[in-house]
Amino acid sequence: MLKIEAPYLIYLGDTQIPEMAKTGAGLAYWRPERCAGQLREPGCAADLGLPDLDLNAAVQQGVKTLVIGTAIPGGQLPDSWITRIVEAMEAGMDIASGLHSPLRSIPALDKTAKETGRNIYDVRLSHGPHPIANGRKRSGQRLLTVGTDCAVGKKYSALALHRELLARDVSATFRATGQTGVLIDGQGLAIDAVVSDFIAGAVEALAPSADDAHWDVIEGQGSLVHPAYAGVSLGLLHGAQPDAFVVCHEYGRKQLSGFEDHRVGSIEHIISLTEQLGRIVSKEIRCAGISLNTSSLSEQEALNAIQEIKEQYGLPVCDPVRFGVKEIIDDLLSKES
Amino acid sequence: MLKIEAPYLIYLGDTQIPEMAKTGAGLAYWRPERCAGQLREPGCAADLGLPDLDLNAAVQQGVKTLVIGTAIPGGQLPDSWITRIVEAMEAGMDIASGLHSPLRSIPALDKTAKETGRNIYDVRLSHGPHPIANGRKRSGQRLLTVGTDCAVGKKYSALALHRELLARDVSATFRATGQTGVLIDGQGLAIDAVVSDFIAGAVEALAPSADDAHWDVIEGQGSLVHPAYAGVSLGLLHGAQPDAFVVCHEYGRKQLSGFEDHRVGSIEHIISLTEQLGRIVSKEIRCAGISLNTSSLSEQEALNAIQEIKEQYGLPVCDPVRFGVKEIIDDLLSKES
Repeated sequence: MLKIEAPYLIYLGDTQIPEMAKTGAGLAYWRPERCAGQLREPGCAADLGLPDLDLNAAVQQGVKTLVIGTAIPGGQLPDSWITRIVEAMEAGMDIASGLHSPLRSIPALDKTAKETGRNIYDVRLSHGPHPIANGRKRSGQRLLTVGTDCAVGKKYSALALHRELLARDVSATFRATGQTGVLIDGQGLAIDAVVSDFIAGAVEALAPSADDAHWDVIEGQGSLVHPAYAGVSLGLLHGAQPDAFVVCHEYGRKQLSGFEDHRVGSIEHIISLTEQLGRIVSKEIRCAGISLNTSSLSEQEALNAIQEIKEQYGLPVCDPVRFGVKEIIDDLLSKES
Repeated sequence: MLKIEAPYLIYLGDTQIPEMAKTGAGLAYWRPERCAGQLREPGCAADLGLPDLDLNAAVQQGVKTLVIGTAIPGGQLPDSWITRIVEAMEAGMDIASGLHSPLRSIPALDKTAKETGRNIYDVRLSHGPHPIANGRKRSGQRLLTVGTDCAVGKKYSALALHRELLARDVSATFRATGQTGVLIDGQGLAIDAVVSDFIAGAVEALAPSADDAHWDVIEGQGSLVHPAYAGVSLGLLHGAQPDAFVVCHEYGRKQLSGFEDHRVGSIEHIISLTEQLGRIVSKEIRCAGISLNTSSLSEQEALNAIQEIKEQYGLPVCDPVRFGVKEIIDDLLSKES
């Protein structure tokens, strides 16, 4: 498992479109205590609300890692960014990136890493070797977020559930399984980059045995009904061995995003599939609630939708972005054995 | 997708245990027309019944590839074998191996490959890049073998079903998804070596659109109820988009091999799971029969067991090793639209 050292300096380059800095915004929102500041080139349109630091100031504040906080349209890293990343390594920082194209594949960066002895963490790459799963029951409690599609809020929900557990003084660990989650938390594993034989085993290692009262909150991936990614979702479910799961769904979404021939899973179907397939590793697996992404609705419509789905399923329903996840955690903790 | 050129010379080294030559035996049994001969060192206890050829004789007979036909206890390739493999490349042959440890990782072999320009096919490695699955309906017909556990006869059954289709003059292609299948057929893909994001997409590419009357017979992997490998099995099911599947089961096996905490899937459960999970890519998916491994039974017991299961499920049931797969193919072809 990767471990990226904080504090971070978040690099935004000269990105023209503030929305491209989603990764940086996630870091600043979920782990402000890990973020010392941001580094922006002239003309940068993004602003995370963090202190602007140049490399010297960052070094003085003890920054350990420069994290690439923005996506790049087209995927090609501009030369001026490469120069800055080289300078950061020369100033003593590690580099972390969730970009599709590994930084290590850029000769100037690879060369500087070797010369300076700094680490480049390309978090989309698998940092194996990983074990084969053994499927044996582990101690501790685990919660997995699952989805009716990709990009419905599984990472956000897991981070929110984890934060709410900590707010109640419950011992809990967030377990990142995607590149942005790994950057945010500084540890974890991009599970979709793992060789398929080892999916479940890698997740067993990521969320190991723990104290009986401890909760691991594991970020889900894909969906069990997704024609491209269901294998990842199932391997993750088996490796996670969850006691409880939360179904994440975007209200009103009908077709799988980018796969228009395929319908999203219904909440009901995802609950029953997750229970059915999860039971081989976790006999008492149960749905702990529904996380509803209501971003397409007005606030009143959102409250109505939540109420409607709550009555339909008899489970706590939350929109974590709008209203938090208190009800799911109330219910979860009230049912602990 | 890998393509390994025939004819093959099968290398058995000086293996002391005939059973270690299972891969070679599979090649000689399923693709005798691809096997020019065997090469054995002094003291070798295995014999595939093929002509013994030295490297010179093999070259004269047009051999293109030396295939490692035997497993190695401990996994360490003996120096004398390395010397022989070097000589084979110098004589103009490619090398193909399904051993765990890649031949490419042995410096002398890697060096010789570069010097001679010959290929080393380590079929357990993924030869990507692979596409992301699109889940769109393809033409042609596809049959997938699925299992109640690993090592119950999915490869053997697929090869037998393919051979029986050819015997009826049906246009058909075997699609290997494991290292031994790839060596036997000279093409295919070890699906468990593919990065998990691409499992289904790699299988879509492996078994592409075809003429309406054509059958692809796809080798299954793992089991949907296996705590370590179910993710691979599900990705393979979705990528295969099968019209029909055959459930492979070893009579009398109760626990998953090597995973004693876990029961094998019942035939009934595997049928219903495969239909349920396969339907998102293949609406009319159906079970075409049951392949029963009766190796633990006497012949009369085997016939009784087959009859019993046939009555229980109302499906054709065969032991492909003992009695062939005619009934499954009869039934499959009678139901074609």
